This record gives sequence, structure tokens and C-alpha cells, in this order.
Amino acid sequence: MMNLFKSLLLHIIFFLSSSSSSSINNTGSTAIQFRNISEIPQNSHGIAGYSHITLAGSFAHGMKEVEVWLETFAPGSHTPIHRHSCEEVFIILKGTATLFLASNSHPSHFPGNPHQIPVFQNSTFIVPVNHPHQLWNTHEHEDLQFLAIISRPPVKVFIYDDWFMPHTEAKLKFPIFWDEGFVQPNTSKDHHDHNDDL
Amino acid sequence: MMNLFKSLLLHIIFFLSSSSSSSINNTGSTAIQFRNISEIPQNSHGIAGYSHITLAGSFAHGMKEVEVWLETFAPGSHTPIHRHSCEEVFIILKGTATLFLASNSHPSHFPGNPHQIPVFQNSTFIVPVNHPHQLWNTHEHEDLQFLAIISRPPVKVFIYDDWFMPHTEAKLKFPIFWDEGFVQPNTSKDHHDHNDDL
Repeated sequence: MMNLFKSLLLHIIFFLSSSSSSSINNTGSTAIQFRNISEIPQNSHGIAGYSHITLAGSFAHGMKEVEVWLETFAPGSHTPIHRHSCEEVFIILKGTATLFLASNSHPSHFPGNPHQIPVFQNSTFIVPVNHPHQLWNTHEHEDLQFLAIISRPPVKVFIYDDWFMPHTEAKLKFPIFWDEGFVQPNTSKDHHDHNDDL
Repeated sequence: MMNLFKSLLLHIIFFLSSSSSSSINNTGSTAIQFRNISEIPQNSHGIAGYSHITLAGSFAHGMKEVEVWLETFAPGSHTPIHRHSCEEVFIILKGTATLFLASNSHPSHFPGNPHQIPVFQNSTFIVPVNHPHQLWNTHEHEDLQFLAIISRPPVKVFIYDDWFMPHTEAKLKFPIFWDEGFVQPNTSKDHHDHNDDL
């Protein structure tokens, strides 16, 4: 496994140094939405130290059941504390991070002090449905880059100000930052929600 | 983007050369199923030139909505021609391949001559629901390695002998090879199905 990955990475480096452009959006009537990832623009969505690429998305590509993101966080930057009523799988491609994770069954109706789990390059983990979580790039110098895979797109994210905010006070952010360009302006504002999916 | 990836890869190489083991299966009552990918055994499932790791799976990890696989094919090896009634996203990590892809709406009730799409390292594409497809490692010397993400696990794969086999004759392979260890022996055999999900 180790050798395979090393070989993989050396070849990707070679490839990135030498590749030319190619793009196929359709093959006859069959849309595969083929893309060269190194040619897809990253977007910070106005957030310092952040960049995002939707590899396969609900609004962007018509996905109905899964969505895949490539996300990069500069040293010291982090996601908000948030939850969503979908499954999420992470694959850490680069860097080290601390995953802060609370249960959705805290007796006090707020997340409470989270578990702290160190995660690192070439590791994978699953965030259970509706568990409040936050990922921090804890490396001094190195970017954190990961793939995040969610079910039930488009994602409806509830954001907490801190770990002691009641679940019912978490704010719905829908559409999420990177989906804002795809929807009507009057549906793109933050607003409170009944939090009834927790 | 190019520089980010190059940096990523160099750091992963360093990391893989120097990392030590770590594994956390639970954090209190909160199972995140954290794993170091380089410590997960690959399994060929008796198929020459093939190896598979389920990063997040229905049988393996209790996933209900998405499943993520890391797959490796030796030069000249390939998937069967197959279809499944779920979404699938590919991310090519290493190597070059030809994607053979047919529509699910061929007038003759069989896949017919497929489109041929060259794919390569650091590319991504989406296979539409129920479209018969096959991925061949077309590189002479280099392994093909990719992440495959599917919805609606566990996957129910219908396998074709060739591109001119009627959709209704494709054989259901359930459970798929890597899930066989998780189920009762009497449900693990190949069998025909009504093909009623096409």
C-alpha cells in the first residue's frame, strides 16, 4: 500500500508537470461531466484562507444522491461548527487537522465540549448524521486539503456560534456558500429554521 | 491549483515515509471510524491484477447513503461491463484508462457500441444512473488507481457478458465481491434477477 501510494504520487507530479488540456462535457446523449481537476478554478467564496471545488454537485452537475468537494484550508483556518442531516465521509489528502466532534444526543440540548481527534494525510473518517463537528487546520505552515463526500445534496448546514449554543439556535445556511451562484437571490440569504431535522 | 497539488503530493510522500500507526474506532459514544488508509489491507477478492479497499461501506461501516471505494487495477485489467441504479463519481488518482460507456436508452434493449472516453490522473467524471460502463487500465506499465463513490449502498451490480447482451439478461452480482464476507453464505451466490430496476 505504501509503495503504491508513493508511486501514485510521483506519477501525479509528473503528470501535473506535463499534462495538456482536455475536456469532454458530453458523449453523444450521455453526459459524464468529465473534468481535469487541475483545470477547475478554485473559489474562496470570500473566506480568507479557504478554497473550494465542487467535483460533483447537486446545483453544479445535477447530482441527486451524492456530492463531492475538494476543500483547502490555510494554516489556522477552519470550518464553522456545524451539523447536517446527511452522511459525510472525509479523505485527508494533505496536512494535519483536529476534528472536533460532538454527539447529537447530548442531554443538555447543545453540543457541549467536543471530542478532539487528530487526523492526518491519507486518513479517512465518517462523521455521523447530525453530529456537530468542526475541522481545524492545526499545522503551522502546511495547507489542509481533503475530499468531503456527502449524501442527500444539496447540503443544508446548521451553523453554531460555539459548542454551547442550543441545537435549536443553530442557523441554517442554505444554500451553502459555493451554491449561492446557482439559485435565485431571494433564496440565498441566511435565515433561521425550525431545526426540525435534528 | 497545480502548485497546490504538487505541494500536496510531496508532503504525502514525506508523510508516508515517516508516519507511525494510529487508529481510533470510537470517541466515547461517537463512532467516526477513523482509519489510516496506508494501514488498511487491500484485497484482490481472487481477481488477478485487482485490489480493493472500502473506505466507507454499507456492510463494513454501517453507511446508509454513500459508499466510497479505493480501487487499483494492474495494466490491462478492467472492471466488468456493468450497470447499477445509483449515482457514481470517479476520481482518478493514478494511471490512465479508457471509460467505455453506453446509454441506458439504446433503442435495441442492449447497450450497443459504447462511447470510449480517455481518462487520466487527476480527472473526475460522473457515470449516470443505470448506464452500462466499463473501465480499462490502458497503460502498458502503470497501475490504475481511483476513488469510486456511489449512492444507495449496498450496490446491486448487473454484469453484462458483452455490449450486445440484452439489459434484461445482465446478471445481478449481489453482494458484490468485497461484501461477500459480511453476509450469510446462502445469499452470496450470483443469481439472475428480474432486472426491474433499469
